[in-house]
Amino acid sequence: MTDVSLVNRLATTDANFNKRLDHLLAWDSVSNHEVQHAVEAIIADVRQQGDQALLTLTRKFDRVDATSFAELILPKSRLKAAYEGLPEAQRQALEKAASRIKTYHEHQKQSSWEYTEADGTVLGQQITPLDRAGIYVPGGKAAYPSSVLMNAIPAKVAGVKEVIMVVPTPGGELNELVLAAAWQAGVDQVFTIGGAQAVAALAYGTESVPHVDKIVGPGNIFVATAKRAVFGQVGIDMIAGPSEILVVCDGQTDPDWVAMDLFSQAEHDEDAQAILVSWNADFMDQVEASMAKLLPTLEREAIARTSLANRGALIHVQDQAEAVKMINRIAPEHLELSVEDPQAWLSQVRHAGAIFMGRHTCEALGDYCAGPNHVLPTSGTARFSSPLGVQDFQKRSSLIFCSPEGASTLGQTASVLARGESLTAHARSAEYRIDPTAEVSK
Amino acid sequence: MTDVSLVNRLATTDANFNKRLDHLLAWDSVSNHEVQHAVEAIIADVRQQGDQALLTLTRKFDRVDATSFAELILPKSRLKAAYEGLPEAQRQALEKAASRIKTYHEHQKQSSWEYTEADGTVLGQQITPLDRAGIYVPGGKAAYPSSVLMNAIPAKVAGVKEVIMVVPTPGGELNELVLAAAWQAGVDQVFTIGGAQAVAALAYGTESVPHVDKIVGPGNIFVATAKRAVFGQVGIDMIAGPSEILVVCDGQTDPDWVAMDLFSQAEHDEDAQAILVSWNADFMDQVEASMAKLLPTLEREAIARTSLANRGALIHVQDQAEAVKMINRIAPEHLELSVEDPQAWLSQVRHAGAIFMGRHTCEALGDYCAGPNHVLPTSGTARFSSPLGVQDFQKRSSLIFCSPEGASTLGQTASVLARGESLTAHARSAEYRIDPTAEVSK
Repeated sequence: MTDVSLVNRLATTDANFNKRLDHLLAWDSVSNHEVQHAVEAIIADVRQQGDQALLTLTRKFDRVDATSFAELILPKSRLKAAYEGLPEAQRQALEKAASRIKTYHEHQKQSSWEYTEADGTVLGQQITPLDRAGIYVPGGKAAYPSSVLMNAIPAKVAGVKEVIMVVPTPGGELNELVLAAAWQAGVDQVFTIGGAQAVAALAYGTESVPHVDKIVGPGNIFVATAKRAVFGQVGIDMIAGPSEILVVCDGQTDPDWVAMDLFSQAEHDEDAQAILVSWNADFMDQVEASMAKLLPTLEREAIARTSLANRGALIHVQDQAEAVKMINRIAPEHLELSVEDPQAWLSQVRHAGAIFMGRHTCEALGDYCAGPNHVLPTSGTARFSSPLGVQDFQKRSSLIFCSPEGASTLGQTASVLARGESLTAHARSAEYRIDPTAEVSK
Repeated sequence: MTDVSLVNRLATTDANFNKRLDHLLAWDSVSNHEVQHAVEAIIADVRQQGDQALLTLTRKFDRVDATSFAELILPKSRLKAAYEGLPEAQRQALEKAASRIKTYHEHQKQSSWEYTEADGTVLGQQITPLDRAGIYVPGGKAAYPSSVLMNAIPAKVAGVKEVIMVVPTPGGELNELVLAAAWQAGVDQVFTIGGAQAVAALAYGTESVPHVDKIVGPGNIFVATAKRAVFGQVGIDMIAGPSEILVVCDGQTDPDWVAMDLFSQAEHDEDAQAILVSWNADFMDQVEASMAKLLPTLEREAIARTSLANRGALIHVQDQAEAVKMINRIAPEHLELSVEDPQAWLSQVRHAGAIFMGRHTCEALGDYCAGPNHVLPTSGTARFSSPLGVQDFQKRSSLIFCSPEGASTLGQTASVLARGESLTAHARSAEYRIDPTAEVSK
């Protein structure tokens, strides 16, 4: 028997469809003033007291029994030991995933370029890596070794010399797989600190923690608020919302497969969002029946049930064209095109973090080992942002090398425009480079 | 006679050098609580009251005498008229600059790519433009037509269909060159609104202002605070600090040229920063003498004088190697390599927004018309960020298309890692795709 409250059912023909969909998709990442003020106080504390503040805050928030900051430093030998202590199957899986992630990301490396104009002027762009990157890894139950690989490997591929990882150990609990992944990914230093205090330490540096140039990685509301606050002092990746999936299916995929794909998102946390879009109403009933059948068999049933009831949806659309509209409106983090000819859909997909094509490509393959990054834009931010990548750890410098002739010609244009803006020192600086003997060119 | 207080003189051999340099470079972009709360109230107001809030706030802050929102919309015909009404020299200069900026940025366009693995699995990356971009253009005395070109052209090159510009008109004052530049750059819609209210309108949309996907462009502290607040709802470019230049000179460039290059930065505003680094002490005296001689001839003398006294510096280093260290420590927005063989320096420059190479390439040429963007990372953020570019208006979607064989192999790896993270629905979703008849591969 199908549980009527299992998951929301919508159809684009419903009178109140737009309003209901907006309500389901709504996610406000703004933190309240209380959190903001707490975070500001923590940042100020770490900037003033350094290691001592980190020690005090870690003892307090993570209930860690350390008496000196040295106890919050994990030596590389500890990472290596974790790696070597793994069961064979896990070590091999970690290695295979790391190798594939590395191969994919090497395709993203940008190269410097330049071109020379007729008068000898050279224009170009030089690519350099960041000096130092910081990776925030959540501790406790949400400690994901796959996230360590996905955050650290692109930095290393980009050429970042030092990758600094922070990971809280609530109650002193260390996750061996996380440490092993850090070893596998080539992380250079690890500190067992977390929360806003770890973000502050990475942004400003302390006696022991080197300040980094960019902080990446997911975290709770305190971590997200701290990242927003230090943005500008350092770069940050993004303010991640809850994870979501949009499965588009033509009705020809096994409904159990689709149900489990939706669950794989819903099991993350109560705020995660799993949505199915199809123009086949019978198939949607079949998927709902599969969900009702399989849900009780999940280890994380309670979480998935809450997520599906609050934020999940099966959306019936009229046809493929309406399915495409739905994709671009939702701009999903994960898009599964569980259809016969996914290639034919690609040119119409304007916004999606990652696109999983065909019935065999479930999101979980991409989460762990296909190669592309699993750090993806959430909550519709795929409209303007991209998966984490090598680009996040490289930067460009513009190159301008004018020949005397080029400077003379450009100087005339710059002079006119600078005087138009009443910036006459700009104009005079350019005019010094105009060759008075050269014919005036335009 | 050299004015002793004209500009700060430092040498790396000074006992207190590091402290003095840190003090000179310090720039805190954090806005105070008063500004933050004012901006939050404005954003809430625009979200609730839409056009009406914009009208009320614009009347109040910009002293504009409009009675309906329609009066805050500039038709394209008005842009065209401004363009056609320009003096010939200005129109030609604008055209030449726009054409060169377009050519340079076309080199930045990213292309989609994919590769196929032995088992038929396809991995790749699809590049798409943003749907809609918003450009903030400051009004009044800081209205720069060159900024309109530098912000709008990369968006258009990226393929953005709609570019929406906002520009306040304090006291009703319109800048014809700004409107002409908007026409030249192909801006699609212009609203004469500014401040935090314009940022809120672009981020959330109102009855008349379409919401955009990303907001770029400089602004005052209210604009910067509003951009930081709406980051996540939309993309933003960066929180810009005051503009700065670092000139490195071997002592063989005309000291008047170097002085004027420093002035071209110092004339921007009182907080702008102009620094010269050289290992030639005599030359530094010559530059200071040139500065003393030329400063009284500047139209914006008062601004330049304040900027140089408060934030300017002539820094004497021991040798070229120390000059390189200084570059990478400061990570300047603009770097002039006023030296004999600037190409030889390039590989050592790790951090700089734009590099102006050789004695003939003054920053002003790049500010207006060389081609590369003049929106550059300030206050040392070149350590982790890049000039504005086409990349800011494009985004990537990861592509994963597993063959049945590929999914079967990857499913085994994903299953091991997912179970290691206790995400069993992830594991089961992957396991559905494992072909039970296939030989187990690792």
